[in-house]
Amino acid sequence: MNLTFINIIDYLGTFAFAISGMRLASAKRFDWFGAYVVGLVTAIGGGTTRDLLLDLTPFWMLQSSYLVVTGFALLFVIFLGKYVIRLHNTFFIFDAIGLGLFVVVGIDKTLELGFPFWVAILMGMITGSVGGVIRDILINEVPLIFRKDIYALACVVGGVFYYICFKLNFSPVLTQTVAAVSVIFTRIIAVKYHISLPVLKAHEDFEKEKKV
Amino acid sequence: MNLTFINIIDYLGTFAFAISGMRLASAKRFDWFGAYVVGLVTAIGGGTTRDLLLDLTPFWMLQSSYLVVTGFALLFVIFLGKYVIRLHNTFFIFDAIGLGLFVVVGIDKTLELGFPFWVAILMGMITGSVGGVIRDILINEVPLIFRKDIYALACVVGGVFYYICFKLNFSPVLTQTVAAVSVIFTRIIAVKYHISLPVLKAHEDFEKEKKV
Amino acid sequence: MNLTFINIIDYLGTFAFAISGMRLASAKRFDWFGAYVVGLVTAIGGGTTRDLLLDLTPFWMLQSSYLVVTGFALLFVIFLGKYVIRLHNTFFIFDAIGLGLFVVVGIDKTLELGFPFWVAILMGMITGSVGGVIRDILINEVPLIFRKDIYALACVVGGVFYYICFKLNFSPVLTQTVAAVSVIFTRIIAVKYHISLPVLKAHEDFEKEKKV
Repeated sequence: MNLTFINIIDYLGTFAFAISGMRLASAKRFDWFGAYVVGLVTAIGGGTTRDLLLDLTPFWMLQSSYLVVTGFALLFVIFLGKYVIRLHNTFFIFDAIGLGLFVVVGIDKTLELGFPFWVAILMGMITGSVGGVIRDILINEVPLIFRKDIYALACVVGGVFYYICFKLNFSPVLTQTVAAVSVIFTRIIAVKYHISLPVLKAHEDFEKEKKV
Repeated sequence: MNLTFINIIDYLGTFAFAISGMRLASAKRFDWFGAYVVGLVTAIGGGTTRDLLLDLTPFWMLQSSYLVVTGFALLFVIFLGKYVIRLHNTFFIFDAIGLGLFVVVGIDKTLELGFPFWVAILMGMITGSVGGVIRDILINEVPLIFRKDIYALACVVGGVFYYICFKLNFSPVLTQTVAAVSVIFTRIIAVKYHISLPVLKAHEDFEKEKKV
Repeated sequence: MNLTFINIIDYLGTFAFAISGMRLASAKRFDWFGAYVVGLVTAIGGGTTRDLLLDLTPFWMLQSSYLVVTGFALLFVIFLGKYVIRLHNTFFIFDAIGLGLFVVVGIDKTLELGFPFWVAILMGMITGSVGGVIRDILINEVPLIFRKDIYALACVVGGVFYYICFKLNFSPVLTQTVAAVSVIFTRIIAVKYHISLPVLKAHEDFEKEKKV
């Protein structure tokens, strides 16, 4: 296997996403298989949704490495579970770096198919954040992403930077790098300074008057 | 932009569907982004599911208006939230009219691809009702549609009227109108007179004996 | 209609899967329509997910029998509900036999499209188990499959046996039979002797430190 720099980031990101899924699965007393599936879905759910919307064969069906990396993540949680907590910050960095890469991959794939930029930015966001949403649905919780931190919005920030660099005729590599770094930077700032979006104010009777 | 009558109904329906999603999201203390996503998914989830099943590019990826209309719905809820409750009945009418249109669009698209009528009726129902199901999954509630009111069944009623008019050789426009009106009418009657389907009787031990 | 042996197993499996969905739906006080949908999704959800991933038209859109069989299952639960409990073991056997067939169909379809064996084994597992996961999401419960019994793993066992027989140059019919029987056998043994996978141990602070 010819490991490139991009591959390494991809695997680190997959690993960190899978670990985040398995941590939550273990809190719900999932068995090993369930934890593996939740970890896998966290890691590949966003890219799979993107590929289905773009009518492409899901990326993980073309290359077994994502299943293998998720397998290593499971072994890590089973045998070195205590380090998962101690390495919390390390995993956060891996997760942010992975997110930056996933967003850029999502944008690139969409532009290559000839879709306009706003679709590409959406697909970047979907690639980065839908895995976490499916994870939360599987563990039967309200998706965290809708209530806490800046996460999907960091993906959109990356998309906007991508667009700006593109319009400024930056080289593809520079454009991708700036976009990925802006995602990572936004995530780190948001978490470090507890920046989040305002909550949508519920008017008193909203809850009572639920309708279909 | 060339606004036709159909476009206006489409936007009103999208707006009403998005508002219904955002109301429930705000009751769960979602942030602005989360509310936007839930509103968007409520509005486009049904049509997206239909397009994926039919192997078409999801309709909202070809035209940015659905994202824009959902953006206006968010602004409306943020700045004019109190009117959401006061205008409850108006939104219900928009929602019913939108439902009528969405069902007809779903049927038309499916028939054009050469599928038989029963698939088209199903796709009409999926177009009209799956958005609300995904919305309820995202806010972590049991889908209302499975327990309350006549909603999906109103879509099926529209499909049956479409079929009858089609067999009677009505013109396409008349067929579509009759079908849409029958959906709207069924919804209004069902809500006004609190008509709902019987609950499936649970036999005592059902709950205990859950199996995979 | 030309009923073959495979058709009969297919219908029995669909019937048993639909009943399992409707039982859980009735425990949540779903109405008839809701119960029908949950039953249908339990029966066809796995194959639909597989077909979307493989970019095929979902199988139930090409043949109305799955909707009809699910309709019979609903009538059965409505009018003969008490037998659902008494016939618990019979349904378990139908369910296991159906599972065996669904897994083999999933593997066959995937191999025909030229995907490697590991994708086919995954698709066999997806065909057999995703319907139950969607069912549990719709009734707003944590998917049972992630916490109890050997279910998805039985599908993987079938896939491995399929692979071994294939490598040993067994005839297609023999290969398929061995694979299906190994699924059925694994299910029966696992349930009879309460065999399940170990739970992933949660380290103390996992729950507190939830992150996106």
